[in-house]
Amino acid sequence: MPNPTAAMLVIGDEILSGRTRDANMHYLAGELAQRGIDLLEVRIVSDQHDRIVGALNDLRAGHDHVFTSGGIGPTHDDITADAVAAAFGVGLDVRDDARAILAAHYQRTGLELNAARLRMARIPEGACLIDNPVSSAPGFSLGNVHVMAGVPAVFQAMVAALLPTLAAGAALYSQSLTIPRGEGEIAGELQALAAAHPDLSIGCYPFQRDGAYGANVVVRGADRAQVDAALVKLAEIFPEAVA
Amino acid sequence: MPNPTAAMLVIGDEILSGRTRDANMHYLAGELAQRGIDLLEVRIVSDQHDRIVGALNDLRAGHDHVFTSGGIGPTHDDITADAVAAAFGVGLDVRDDARAILAAHYQRTGLELNAARLRMARIPEGACLIDNPVSSAPGFSLGNVHVMAGVPAVFQAMVAALLPTLAAGAALYSQSLTIPRGEGEIAGELQALAAAHPDLSIGCYPFQRDGAYGANVVVRGADRAQVDAALVKLAEIFPEAVA
Repeated sequence: MPNPTAAMLVIGDEILSGRTRDANMHYLAGELAQRGIDLLEVRIVSDQHDRIVGALNDLRAGHDHVFTSGGIGPTHDDITADAVAAAFGVGLDVRDDARAILAAHYQRTGLELNAARLRMARIPEGACLIDNPVSSAPGFSLGNVHVMAGVPAVFQAMVAALLPTLAAGAALYSQSLTIPRGEGEIAGELQALAAAHPDLSIGCYPFQRDGAYGANVVVRGADRAQVDAALVKLAEIFPEAVA
Repeated sequence: MPNPTAAMLVIGDEILSGRTRDANMHYLAGELAQRGIDLLEVRIVSDQHDRIVGALNDLRAGHDHVFTSGGIGPTHDDITADAVAAAFGVGLDVRDDARAILAAHYQRTGLELNAARLRMARIPEGACLIDNPVSSAPGFSLGNVHVMAGVPAVFQAMVAALLPTLAAGAALYSQSLTIPRGEGEIAGELQALAAAHPDLSIGCYPFQRDGAYGANVVVRGADRAQVDAALVKLAEIFPEAVA
């Protein structure tokens, strides 16, 4: 059976303006790889209702799962829940269970559950809540779309709560070698190796360090023995390679 | 006149697998912001021909410029030039000017211009070359699509060569304040401020530091005086804010 597929949608003007460097994408990519869920696409869009709705509808049609990050806080620029409800054509309102979670949290911390904070209890019809052990305000899953916070500590906690509930695939086994030669010198051999191992993915990632060219070759596959065999062959062809 | 719009397409399995953290997106976002070109969307797709072609055609239809990163090296997994040619429905072949650039480079460095390296002289019909002062192999622009390397040093050099040739917009002026309060406490005031300044973009980016909540409020706009006025108002409402 093929692995489940996934896409991620990052909602964030602050990343597109160059102000902030995204951290959630890199984190989610690593977690999904470990779980055998294939992340095939990431989109980052600005905080505009129509763009978010369009991207959501595109991505949820083509992948088993869509994970979103950002835009579910209490301020006027937090419009993700509205966009998700619009994409699915369902209603959006404060829900009792979400309100109860927030009420308990603010009572504990001695803060007021004001109108802005109550916005975070607006949940699209039919969604399931995602637990937020960091700051309480929940995320939610609607259909195959999983809506999470943008603050990295909260995003990571929500991913930790959510992933064990999703069907896993076969995590790819991967090995890599660093070859101290330019890509152009090893390309022919790599192509032959890739052709001889159609079940493996053989990626070549060049770098330049201290003025010298080199390449990291990454071999990935579901079958450990095949990956190891390809790596042995690679090390024979390039004896100067370093694991 | 509105600013030119842009999208970026990152081609890279290594980012989607969680192996590498993207650097080019953050760099390009900063450069475009300075030049007044509005980056509205970024997509990251895996090294699959159909996905790259689909994303290219989507993005080039909706933006003034599309910038791509990755997949133009000499190895079998470098398929960006093929995908761009397919997206535009034009031919792709080794071109004399690109071949001459590579031949001169490899003669200088004493290396062979072999078949793999010659792949990097394959340029879609009708494209203009983008200079690569780092490692010679050129990028190219075809229509509104600008195709650049994935290695950060090369990507940055190509952006530096390309951007001065594109029409600039009005760079947004931006100011920020850090408010040592949770988002939920300042949301009402921010919303009122945003409503009073429809020409400004007022973003609120929460953080948690040493257990305390705070928010960075970023005010952006084309008109410096308006941004400054909004910031003065903000500092009056929240006297504990720090610039």
